[in-house]
Amino acid sequence: MHIQLNPVGNMNLLSQAEVDQLQLSASSELYMLYRNCSLAVLNAGSNTDDAEAIYQKYKKFKIEVIRRERGVKIDLDNPPLHAFVDGKIIRGIREHLSAVLRDILFINSRYLNMPISSENITDTTFDILRNANLILPETEPNLITCWGGHSISHNEYKYTKDVGYQLGLRAFNICTGCGPGAMKGPMKGATIGHAKQRNKSGRYIGLTEPSIIAAEPPNPIVNELVIMPDIEKRLEAFVRMSHGLIIFPGGAGTAEELLYILGIMLNEKNKDQKLPIILTGPASAKAYFKEIHAFIGATLGEKAQSLYKIIINDAPAVAREMKIGLEQVLTHRKATGDSFHFNWSLEIESDFQHPFEPNHANMAALNISHDLPTAELAANLRRVFSGIVAGNVKSGGIKAIRELGPFQISGDKEIMTLMDKLLASFVEQQRMKLPGTEYIPCYNVIEE
Amino acid sequence: MHIQLNPVGNMNLLSQAEVDQLQLSASSELYMLYRNCSLAVLNAGSNTDDAEAIYQKYKKFKIEVIRRERGVKIDLDNPPLHAFVDGKIIRGIREHLSAVLRDILFINSRYLNMPISSENITDTTFDILRNANLILPETEPNLITCWGGHSISHNEYKYTKDVGYQLGLRAFNICTGCGPGAMKGPMKGATIGHAKQRNKSGRYIGLTEPSIIAAEPPNPIVNELVIMPDIEKRLEAFVRMSHGLIIFPGGAGTAEELLYILGIMLNEKNKDQKLPIILTGPASAKAYFKEIHAFIGATLGEKAQSLYKIIINDAPAVAREMKIGLEQVLTHRKATGDSFHFNWSLEIESDFQHPFEPNHANMAALNISHDLPTAELAANLRRVFSGIVAGNVKSGGIKAIRELGPFQISGDKEIMTLMDKLLASFVEQQRMKLPGTEYIPCYNVIEE
Amino acid sequence: MHIQLNPVGNMNLLSQAEVDQLQLSASSELYMLYRNCSLAVLNAGSNTDDAEAIYQKYKKFKIEVIRRERGVKIDLDNPPLHAFVDGKIIRGIREHLSAVLRDILFINSRYLNMPISSENITDTTFDILRNANLILPETEPNLITCWGGHSISHNEYKYTKDVGYQLGLRAFNICTGCGPGAMKGPMKGATIGHAKQRNKSGRYIGLTEPSIIAAEPPNPIVNELVIMPDIEKRLEAFVRMSHGLIIFPGGAGTAEELLYILGIMLNEKNKDQKLPIILTGPASAKAYFKEIHAFIGATLGEKAQSLYKIIINDAPAVAREMKIGLEQVLTHRKATGDSFHFNWSLEIESDFQHPFEPNHANMAALNISHDLPTAELAANLRRVFSGIVAGNVKSGGIKAIRELGPFQISGDKEIMTLMDKLLASFVEQQRMKLPGTEYIPCYNVIEE
Amino acid sequence: MHIQLNPVGNMNLLSQAEVDQLQLSASSELYMLYRNCSLAVLNAGSNTDDAEAIYQKYKKFKIEVIRRERGVKIDLDNPPLHAFVDGKIIRGIREHLSAVLRDILFINSRYLNMPISSENITDTTFDILRNANLILPETEPNLITCWGGHSISHNEYKYTKDVGYQLGLRAFNICTGCGPGAMKGPMKGATIGHAKQRNKSGRYIGLTEPSIIAAEPPNPIVNELVIMPDIEKRLEAFVRMSHGLIIFPGGAGTAEELLYILGIMLNEKNKDQKLPIILTGPASAKAYFKEIHAFIGATLGEKAQSLYKIIINDAPAVAREMKIGLEQVLTHRKATGDSFHFNWSLEIESDFQHPFEPNHANMAALNISHDLPTAELAANLRRVFSGIVAGNVKSGGIKAIRELGPFQISGDKEIMTLMDKLLASFVEQQRMKLPGTEYIPCYNVIEE
Repeated sequence: MHIQLNPVGNMNLLSQAEVDQLQLSASSELYMLYRNCSLAVLNAGSNTDDAEAIYQKYKKFKIEVIRRERGVKIDLDNPPLHAFVDGKIIRGIREHLSAVLRDILFINSRYLNMPISSENITDTTFDILRNANLILPETEPNLITCWGGHSISHNEYKYTKDVGYQLGLRAFNICTGCGPGAMKGPMKGATIGHAKQRNKSGRYIGLTEPSIIAAEPPNPIVNELVIMPDIEKRLEAFVRMSHGLIIFPGGAGTAEELLYILGIMLNEKNKDQKLPIILTGPASAKAYFKEIHAFIGATLGEKAQSLYKIIINDAPAVAREMKIGLEQVLTHRKATGDSFHFNWSLEIESDFQHPFEPNHANMAALNISHDLPTAELAANLRRVFSGIVAGNVKSGGIKAIRELGPFQISGDKEIMTLMDKLLASFVEQQRMKLPGTEYIPCYNVIEE
Repeated sequence: MHIQLNPVGNMNLLSQAEVDQLQLSASSELYMLYRNCSLAVLNAGSNTDDAEAIYQKYKKFKIEVIRRERGVKIDLDNPPLHAFVDGKIIRGIREHLSAVLRDILFINSRYLNMPISSENITDTTFDILRNANLILPETEPNLITCWGGHSISHNEYKYTKDVGYQLGLRAFNICTGCGPGAMKGPMKGATIGHAKQRNKSGRYIGLTEPSIIAAEPPNPIVNELVIMPDIEKRLEAFVRMSHGLIIFPGGAGTAEELLYILGIMLNEKNKDQKLPIILTGPASAKAYFKEIHAFIGATLGEKAQSLYKIIINDAPAVAREMKIGLEQVLTHRKATGDSFHFNWSLEIESDFQHPFEPNHANMAALNISHDLPTAELAANLRRVFSGIVAGNVKSGGIKAIRELGPFQISGDKEIMTLMDKLLASFVEQQRMKLPGTEYIPCYNVIEE
Repeated sequence: MHIQLNPVGNMNLLSQAEVDQLQLSASSELYMLYRNCSLAVLNAGSNTDDAEAIYQKYKKFKIEVIRRERGVKIDLDNPPLHAFVDGKIIRGIREHLSAVLRDILFINSRYLNMPISSENITDTTFDILRNANLILPETEPNLITCWGGHSISHNEYKYTKDVGYQLGLRAFNICTGCGPGAMKGPMKGATIGHAKQRNKSGRYIGLTEPSIIAAEPPNPIVNELVIMPDIEKRLEAFVRMSHGLIIFPGGAGTAEELLYILGIMLNEKNKDQKLPIILTGPASAKAYFKEIHAFIGATLGEKAQSLYKIIINDAPAVAREMKIGLEQVLTHRKATGDSFHFNWSLEIESDFQHPFEPNHANMAALNISHDLPTAELAANLRRVFSGIVAGNVKSGGIKAIRELGPFQISGDKEIMTLMDKLLASFVEQQRMKLPGTEYIPCYNVIEE
Repeated sequence: MHIQLNPVGNMNLLSQAEVDQLQLSASSELYMLYRNCSLAVLNAGSNTDDAEAIYQKYKKFKIEVIRRERGVKIDLDNPPLHAFVDGKIIRGIREHLSAVLRDILFINSRYLNMPISSENITDTTFDILRNANLILPETEPNLITCWGGHSISHNEYKYTKDVGYQLGLRAFNICTGCGPGAMKGPMKGATIGHAKQRNKSGRYIGLTEPSIIAAEPPNPIVNELVIMPDIEKRLEAFVRMSHGLIIFPGGAGTAEELLYILGIMLNEKNKDQKLPIILTGPASAKAYFKEIHAFIGATLGEKAQSLYKIIINDAPAVAREMKIGLEQVLTHRKATGDSFHFNWSLEIESDFQHPFEPNHANMAALNISHDLPTAELAANLRRVFSGIVAGNVKSGGIKAIRELGPFQISGDKEIMTLMDKLLASFVEQQRMKLPGTEYIPCYNVIEE
């Protein structure tokens, strides 16, 4: 199959110089990044979360930005067929392809050649979101980020739809990591809620990054997609843009996200910040949250536990709680003069901002100990889970595990015992990977 | 609970005289019509199809149009609570309430005092639809009417969503009788399809009439609602506005609709008309359609059978077939100069236009015989099923059956045997009424 | 020249019955009304105000509403050429043609066959405006009606543009009688003011009626046109819809308008009404307003004089005064609960509502005397000026004068002397008719 | 007077780093550029074209971009009062202020620190226009650039309005240098033309640059303003974006523009390019164009003369001619595959692209001789006129002339004689400067 299409928005307005940068060339790192992200987007709707397998399957896929003096065309060779209806690409996926083009070009031309200093990571994050037209200062603040597993039970999925529906009825917009499962359910639910309220400007924002996009491709309902350069900027984007966080059941990635936000909120400088955080799931998820809650208590302490609420099986209550929380957020922003749509004043320590490369050496070197300050412990625990996600579903991680064996994770005995138990429960509940194949852990937990 | 709300659209622009017409008064037929239709609309989301039970349950409900020189307010006393989210009415339901106000007032002031002659039933139908802004001459013609049961299995419901999704992906809009089941599924599916295609002007048209609205209240996804004055104008509206018909499994109402359209299409004057008709359902519905097909063959003959296609368990195929059919419809309209959005040239005999009052006498008097011309037989068969729907779920019908016992339906032995069998299968498959209570037939089939 | 065009809006959605009503037929009064109003609209931009001459010039003009099953076409035969650019009709004029079609059909089908009782003249006026979508309850109230002569000096015209510009800068919308001169200047000025303020929803409302439309055809800037059935409903529409009135120099028509509003505001029941009225013109108009002011003082008294302000040569002051006045209007409406967009509570006596037929007998019979109550005197004076307008520029009036000689106007000597002087000054200043031909008075003033 | 306002569009979305760049500081070149351009924009509506005088008059004016975590505010101290209505800034001017902010920041952060090589001047021009959202690939191509004097007679001004009106009736959009006179008239006319055609998306594009913006400030009707970095990129933007050029009477600046486009079109590589060029004015301008025509003939020859048409006193003919020309442009673009909205394929030699600094040395050194290739002669003649514009109205030029006396312009005797005569006629016709003060030439023409 061979097809040509017009990018949407201003993406058909490329200069000669810009088109040149993306020329088909297997040796060009930028081209490969562009090609792989595009492939991931086109592959939405497939049923695997193994990035490496996807890249293998579509080895013959080629994408080319073609110079036409009349504008730019995207030329696709052997694309996945899910993306098409009667030979025509689904408009939502065409928009996603254009978003990939936009973000790859923009980040490259602005930032890839510039050393990113600690000071300007937040500026960069802001600049990327602004360029994607994600920050709309004249709209009502109402953005809820939903985190949770890509691999969840049907029952849990239905519940995420329910919560999304209740949020949609109350004019909330949804932001997620834009894959399947708990990242898709709330958007589907909100679509129906918005439709019943005749809300035609509902936003279904997906934030992704190059290493996860293939395993968790954006669902076409996502109507605003941004490819952030790395996990850390993606997480920063989530928390600076959102007015509330909902955490559904999930696996290692969800744990990473929870540890990230708790680590930041535990920062003394953020003690006045308002950000409602709700952990929620159907009745069947009660035990799951109990375990998570215990793990947080044992590692980060009661103060961390006090930062969130757990609500079981009550979708309207979750939405109502968010409404109350939103009022508090807005009152606080007005009092401090902070932006409604980008929380500049939230302090994010450099530990949480700089990319963590999850290779064997880095994973082995992580210090997991009660001797660390709580926020630092949270940062390191986050890195552990981040590494496990990489080993599970990311192309680079899968390859590294195949070659060098499981990551070795070590630390305080007590914490390691808890972690081992938690990870085992994720495995048992099939939260690590989509069901279908047996899960082989990509890690060994070593108690010191 | 007591609440006041503003009608949407121009409905807050009422003159003094118009407000006067709707004053609260149990003795006013117009007020009672207005009140009951409003109640039905507010009751969307409830789980009963027994109109009489609903009216009993909400005896205390009152609605009042209040004169405010600044505009008009609708005042609700003891409304059903389904319609509200955190004490605020769902916008979609507010629109439906306004549509009720619009149609009751309009039809009353224009037509109720005017004798409706045979000639102008079509003009009236057009006028009501136009006044509701339903005919948009500058839009693409793409309206598919979906008929089917309000009481269907989960499996069938899922399939109707699937078909709606496939239609939505292909830019079709949906029109239904606007109740639950097969009237809601295609709209929900299309909502997701439209969202993926970034189609923000998706139309989910519901056509209802006062006697059915309580049993089959419009789902809030319906974003254009019209209350036609009677069943016959409602059916005429369906067929003149649509570019294709899909018939899902259903009970007596669905049979009525199928017989209506076949009876019309069998008219010699309509032999050049193009209107794709597809009977479709999931694999489990195969036997159901086989039976229907046989009944049509035995009563109306092969020619009638040739007017539709049966497609089992292939939602994309249904949508693709409609696309092909649409091309033929448009080609034909261009050739004949007929309107894209209202099929003026379709001949509808007066048998199909004049209201049939389904009381015991009229039901008993229906002539069901092979001696009749085929179209007339179709017309009478339609009336039989129409009467059964009334006896099952309509307020007047239920009361009549309670008082006088089942309708007596008689006719040619062969046809009566077939009908008995068909009706029995509807009962067995729980298509007559929503599950929950035992179904007691409202008819006796008598073979002559 | 022969051309076909599509009406805009819903006007291509006519039923068979509606099309039939307008069939080309010289004997049909409705057709002739439709034809003549359409001709007037097409003739915008011509330079005569002699309705009779226009009808003579375009004797060969024919208009036909053609039945197309695909919608309706308007077929024009020998239309005036001003309306076309390179053979294509100007969109604004196409909209006006559609407004003519809408109002003629609507008024005819609803009201022409219905006796209009005193009570429902206001309801009718409201209904016609609502049907034309003129009343937009959700918009800001900001409508200023500008009255003034169709035949004014270049200097005065420039000033009316200036006032319009200053109003436009302050977000006011403009309503006028929609002819040339003081009816066009404020709209042109406001267009520039709105453009500078990026106001894309500026409204330039023209209210006309069949007997004046030819002499004062709507300028194409008018983007909302309504053809009211007669002068009195047109005047009522002006005052019920407006939030302020500006009166520029003019002739008999302007005097009629001033007497109309003063007569109504003098009504004891309207003593709490708020409606800013400003008489304004350039420096050169100072004497003119002095004379008018004296005439009002001598006939209706000081109380009448206190109802308006005179501002000479200060366009920004006029606009600022209107802003202050608007605040008072809104405060009053909020306090009384009256509509922001249609002043229901203003009392208009039947003297001012019922059509006055300006024939020789009626003109001669008018009682002009200080013995009358002030409001009644105002009503009769208004009728005098109304008759003079008819004799000057209206088709029927011109014919009657040609046949029967000038109208005889008689009354109290003192008033007659003042009136004679006032009329003479109108003649001298060329306010009665567009310059070009010598003006021959259509009246004799007789002192009793 | 002190006032704060919100920038429009995304300009309130500045990062911390961006706000820092524009901090108030007399020593910062960027701040002074930003301040002066903002002052010029606020000063629209004043009646002087002496940039130096304006800067002197508003010495106390200060502008500050204020860091608010909630967004950005622009703080104005002692701004010119023309920009305000009842203390509120005119929306159009607020947009212009935001455009200044946008362009100064964008050009600075992208380009000021980057050496601009010959190759990428076109890319840069494109990038600036794209960032200003000026290139709308999905709209109809219909942009006419109007060049002409800022100081023209009332009669000529009225004619430019007429041409604009005729263009507006035909759906053309207007681009000019955005000052008064021939740069404003066509926009005003087109506003009325667009209003009559109900065209709400009319574009009135103003292209300016920092050295001319004070002398020729953008009229608030300009609804898309771009501050290009220098004259040459501004001229390049005009010709690459336009589908036709109209040249009204003017002085040195207009001559510069005419020589610029003729020099480019004479390039052999552009021989197939299509670009309608029309010189036009009222009857009174006949002699003016005769002289210009003769000068072009004597310097650049007949081939140059064949590139344009002269139309005297026929505004509809100008518009019709442009319509015909547009068809040819589009046919050519389709054939060559060039963009409809940015003429990439037009060859512009580096002589026409690189900024010319009009100081005394550069002016004296210009080679004006028949020995040069025609295009080079055109380039140098253009520079002569460009220098005269600077000496007449630009701040730097005025200062230089004040200090060092008139520019010395020398060259071939024949050309110098013609130029002397042409310049003398500009002076005599008051085209060099707005009337009011005596014009003292800023040049001596020296025949070699």
